[in-house]
Amino acid sequence: MRKIKVATVQMDSQHDKASNLQKAERLIREAAGQGAQYVALPEYFNFVGTEEQEEANAEYIPDGETVQFLSRLSKELNIWLHGGSMLEKVRGEVKFYNATVLFNPQGELVGKYRKIHLFDVEIESGPSYLESQTKDFGREVVVCDTDFAKIGLAICYDIRFPELFRLQSLKGAEILMLPAEFTLYTGRDHWETLLRARAIENQAYVIAPGQIGKKPSYQSYGRSMIVDPWGTVIATATDAEMVTVAEIDLDYVQQIRKQVPSLKNRRPEVYSLHLS
Amino acid sequence: MRKIKVATVQMDSQHDKASNLQKAERLIREAAGQGAQYVALPEYFNFVGTEEQEEANAEYIPDGETVQFLSRLSKELNIWLHGGSMLEKVRGEVKFYNATVLFNPQGELVGKYRKIHLFDVEIESGPSYLESQTKDFGREVVVCDTDFAKIGLAICYDIRFPELFRLQSLKGAEILMLPAEFTLYTGRDHWETLLRARAIENQAYVIAPGQIGKKPSYQSYGRSMIVDPWGTVIATATDAEMVTVAEIDLDYVQQIRKQVPSLKNRRPEVYSLHLS
Repeated sequence: MRKIKVATVQMDSQHDKASNLQKAERLIREAAGQGAQYVALPEYFNFVGTEEQEEANAEYIPDGETVQFLSRLSKELNIWLHGGSMLEKVRGEVKFYNATVLFNPQGELVGKYRKIHLFDVEIESGPSYLESQTKDFGREVVVCDTDFAKIGLAICYDIRFPELFRLQSLKGAEILMLPAEFTLYTGRDHWETLLRARAIENQAYVIAPGQIGKKPSYQSYGRSMIVDPWGTVIATATDAEMVTVAEIDLDYVQQIRKQVPSLKNRRPEVYSLHLS
Repeated sequence: MRKIKVATVQMDSQHDKASNLQKAERLIREAAGQGAQYVALPEYFNFVGTEEQEEANAEYIPDGETVQFLSRLSKELNIWLHGGSMLEKVRGEVKFYNATVLFNPQGELVGKYRKIHLFDVEIESGPSYLESQTKDFGREVVVCDTDFAKIGLAICYDIRFPELFRLQSLKGAEILMLPAEFTLYTGRDHWETLLRARAIENQAYVIAPGQIGKKPSYQSYGRSMIVDPWGTVIATATDAEMVTVAEIDLDYVQQIRKQVPSLKNRRPEVYSLHLS
């Protein structure tokens, strides 16, 4: 049996970083208090603001205060702590990265992923946003090894790209992370369907902590979810800043993969013919 | 404006081919009578039986009676006619193919696709089936050119493989076909979610005519669906043998692709690094 309690933290982060971190700490402690051994924060949990405020709030990794904050808490509470995402700055580069970081219960940074797919959309009578204006895209698929499962890291808009999650599951991922700041407009129609589809087609758990509330560019969708490898939504947050806890069972992943061996039924020799 | 009326035909096909074809003809005429210009039949519309009955009911393509049947009707009714699937036999080969065929309004066979992913599953307290026992898998991704859109062809279990539909949309498909004989057990939890996800992530129409009723191996799920490129289910069949008609608008595909340009936001250079 490989069971573990996981938690999503749903937040309404705004432009005041100190206040966001304070709130995050309260919710992380609450999740740990409920027995969660793996606690996941949403995209941009430490800062959501305007482009003008980005430079002052971006951080170097691992030198920045947010990394130190996550390291300290994961060690103190003896939990895996997944810092949904933050603006990462890099010396010599003009643009930032939208980066997610994972800490082990010893407080060590064990994984970092930079968002590959940037949210450049312009919906008539819906949200408009050009993420690539101030962010560069990541160039690496990241799967972290932990003592209970391999974990694939992705962020928000990445969910529209099945390629990424397939590559993660081919690298052994049994849990797929999707911290998000989804829009209300697209979330209504796409959030649950895409999360469940990634779980079903990769036969993996999907853990998706979301932002909620009104942001400078759009209203956030919320509804943080935990989906099991059969595609069943086993936990959903309501419309509040809150912690949602569920127990997941990694043996169930293997059971589903044995019963419907779709990962083995792939035909890469056919796909690659057509990809070349 | 590129609008066209499409129809799904939901059938309870059994082992008597003559009776299936008779029923198919009645439903195809009903769909054409309702103004459908593109009529789609489910997987194995002409025969559903035991493995022992397969040899007698498989056909050569294009010589067999089912192809002649579809050719005659598409020409007479001046419609595009999509023959969900049939058992194809090939001289010199022991196994059959699960093949789908598309006819133009002149009665000409314009596309054939052999199912790539075979349904080899064994679900505890659910369906068990080993499709590869008597069928070989297809080796080609097929997108058909028509005068209103490019159409990707797939069958049933293929829906679990996002790779296939991505390859089709990269080849220009704006409509993704999924004739099916889904099981009640997997259909309940996966059918609508996977159809909608393929539509959303490829921003294409998904047309999915299904079998309904009790078959030798399992109960079929039915719920034939037409999904638009935003992922909205615009038509669903109820639990009966029936025709479902909807108007689709290929300009809407382009509008969605412009607003959320996720097909352009792909990062093939990152994926291929990891696929090699």
